[in-house]
Amino acid sequence: MQPPAPMPTDPDPTPLSYEQAGVNYALIDPLKVSAQRAAAATAPQLLQHGFSELAASRGESAYVVDLGPFYLASIVECLGSKAIVADEMAQLTGRSWYDAIAQDTIAMAVNDLITVGATPLVVQAYWAAGGSDWFADADRAQALVAGWKAACERCGVAWGGGETPALAGIVEAGRIDLAAACTGLVNPKQRLSLGERLGPGDAIVLLDSSGIHANGLSLARKLVERLPQGWLTEVQPGLSYGAALLAPTLLYSPVTEALWRAGITPHYSANITGHGWRKLLRHAKTLSYRIHTLPPVTPVLDFIRRHAGQDDREAYSTLNMGAGFALFVAAADAERTVAVAQAQGVGARVAGVVESGPKQLRIEPLDLTFADDALQLR
Amino acid sequence: MQPPAPMPTDPDPTPLSYEQAGVNYALIDPLKVSAQRAAAATAPQLLQHGFSELAASRGESAYVVDLGPFYLASIVECLGSKAIVADEMAQLTGRSWYDAIAQDTIAMAVNDLITVGATPLVVQAYWAAGGSDWFADADRAQALVAGWKAACERCGVAWGGGETPALAGIVEAGRIDLAAACTGLVNPKQRLSLGERLGPGDAIVLLDSSGIHANGLSLARKLVERLPQGWLTEVQPGLSYGAALLAPTLLYSPVTEALWRAGITPHYSANITGHGWRKLLRHAKTLSYRIHTLPPVTPVLDFIRRHAGQDDREAYSTLNMGAGFALFVAAADAERTVAVAQAQGVGARVAGVVESGPKQLRIEPLDLTFADDALQLR
Repeated sequence: MQPPAPMPTDPDPTPLSYEQAGVNYALIDPLKVSAQRAAAATAPQLLQHGFSELAASRGESAYVVDLGPFYLASIVECLGSKAIVADEMAQLTGRSWYDAIAQDTIAMAVNDLITVGATPLVVQAYWAAGGSDWFADADRAQALVAGWKAACERCGVAWGGGETPALAGIVEAGRIDLAAACTGLVNPKQRLSLGERLGPGDAIVLLDSSGIHANGLSLARKLVERLPQGWLTEVQPGLSYGAALLAPTLLYSPVTEALWRAGITPHYSANITGHGWRKLLRHAKTLSYRIHTLPPVTPVLDFIRRHAGQDDREAYSTLNMGAGFALFVAAADAERTVAVAQAQGVGARVAGVVESGPKQLRIEPLDLTFADDALQLR
Repeated sequence: MQPPAPMPTDPDPTPLSYEQAGVNYALIDPLKVSAQRAAAATAPQLLQHGFSELAASRGESAYVVDLGPFYLASIVECLGSKAIVADEMAQLTGRSWYDAIAQDTIAMAVNDLITVGATPLVVQAYWAAGGSDWFADADRAQALVAGWKAACERCGVAWGGGETPALAGIVEAGRIDLAAACTGLVNPKQRLSLGERLGPGDAIVLLDSSGIHANGLSLARKLVERLPQGWLTEVQPGLSYGAALLAPTLLYSPVTEALWRAGITPHYSANITGHGWRKLLRHAKTLSYRIHTLPPVTPVLDFIRRHAGQDDREAYSTLNMGAGFALFVAAADAERTVAVAQAQGVGARVAGVVESGPKQLRIEPLDLTFADDALQLR
């Protein structure tokens, strides 16, 4: 992690919010709530097969079913609009960036699946192109395949197969909708980390991010209109804004697997994606989360914050600001958790502590507080 | 199943092929082959977790991993362009058809998953809209939720959750990309039906389709341009072309579960989707499949065939022509298999027999033969 380069003055002082960038959660959320209720009502279907769901996994990042000898976890996640950045940068640089966004797509699924304590086992690819023509660019297609395979190997998962439809009329011409479904097991069952053991005194270990990961791209794309050289504007000497955005999302499953081997079972985990640091408030328990030490802000995120004119509240409630994944562990395991992550090549630090008190996130170095109502996921 | 209504003369005698309708497999297939090879190479990743894949499931409709006490099966499948038909019909009829296409989407995943002998357990929803606005149509959103839930209940699966991204710039404005991921178990393990027991003497039982299901929609949409009243052209008195196309795909898992309860384990199964009846050639074994009895052709498929000017070869190699799912069972189980399906409300008949000989499909009533090279899926 390098220190951020000196920033030019923001050419447009008007702040740019996430909503202005085109994502309106007020429109999406009623459907989400309705779907969540309907989904929860289907849980009894499992009983006829001799299984049952873990109701506590509803509202968490992966759905968990008790199979008897172990728990089954499953999820589907999409890349989102980062593919557009890869497309733009391919035009400007003459090479494909699909190896990078393949890793992003798998990370979106795998990093969610592991939050419940699962070991990811199988990934299915969902690559829906805007027409058969999409597949004619062999270099891009091969970059996608190679990046997907490499990310599977890094996570220790088998790539089971997938679907490569040509969806002219649904997906825009020249674009692709990338998603991944992931299935895994919590095995042995004591690895389950739905937060039952989360409580006062636990340490909060934050794992570094590599950049923007795959959330906040609508904002990042909107921002490019303000930049003098567009995607090629330098974030730091020799590193363009586009290339910095396309640093692939870190894969955290090697860390969670290594923790298990080291005898450490997190009490809870949070994948820091949409809603930024508000994701630290994810668990339903009434607890206070006090952050005393910040990770360094990845240069591209600092660049976005400055150019979008975001204050700390907006930035930390939208972007990962250097922290890609949070592990809530017993205080006695905190330093060793950091060491295990670092041994896997992932930067980490003991950043805070869980305390009794109202449900809130307190980021002391920034004098910022997010209350309970800052995150509504259920 | 009603007999087809008398057909008007085809207003345009030029035959319409699947390739003309916009899907060019020659462009997609090199990527598919490359992805399949890369995926197969990741299989050893499972060993570090104490598990292994069933290599015979590569190239089949679902991927299977040996978990010890049972097999895990997983898949992701998309609806494709049928959502466009639902959108067009909503404009013409003033009501949403998303309850129907929700069932189609789940059927695409579930009907594939059960081919390996799995019981579907969990479905994850993937609903990627062309922008936040999509979710503002509450009637449509509620139809999607209600149809999804009802289909899950019919299949005995838990709806685990999912992803509802707003993907402006990737998915076309006003459209939605619907897909489903499904995970299930082959339990007990002797339910596995990857075709090891498939052999000469087996009976071929064909389960009725409800219509076009969710394959061949590019052709069906292209054809509408030729029809005098477009989507509202009657296929039979009181049934429009659009409504007939939107008959939801039948869900076959109630049949396969009932078969197990009746003590019948199919030797192999094939979900008849893209490539039509050529899917009967799916298994790698060198065997001849002789069809002696045809199911009635669903009226909408007969309508398409006539208006597109397709001959039998084109029609049976593209559309399901009345057969949605094939069960290959021991001859002694054939009649009982039909009875079990019918008891679940699904029409069925003993349609043919597996024989020694070159790999081919012989449809005797039509004097049609498809050779080995008619289907290349591996």
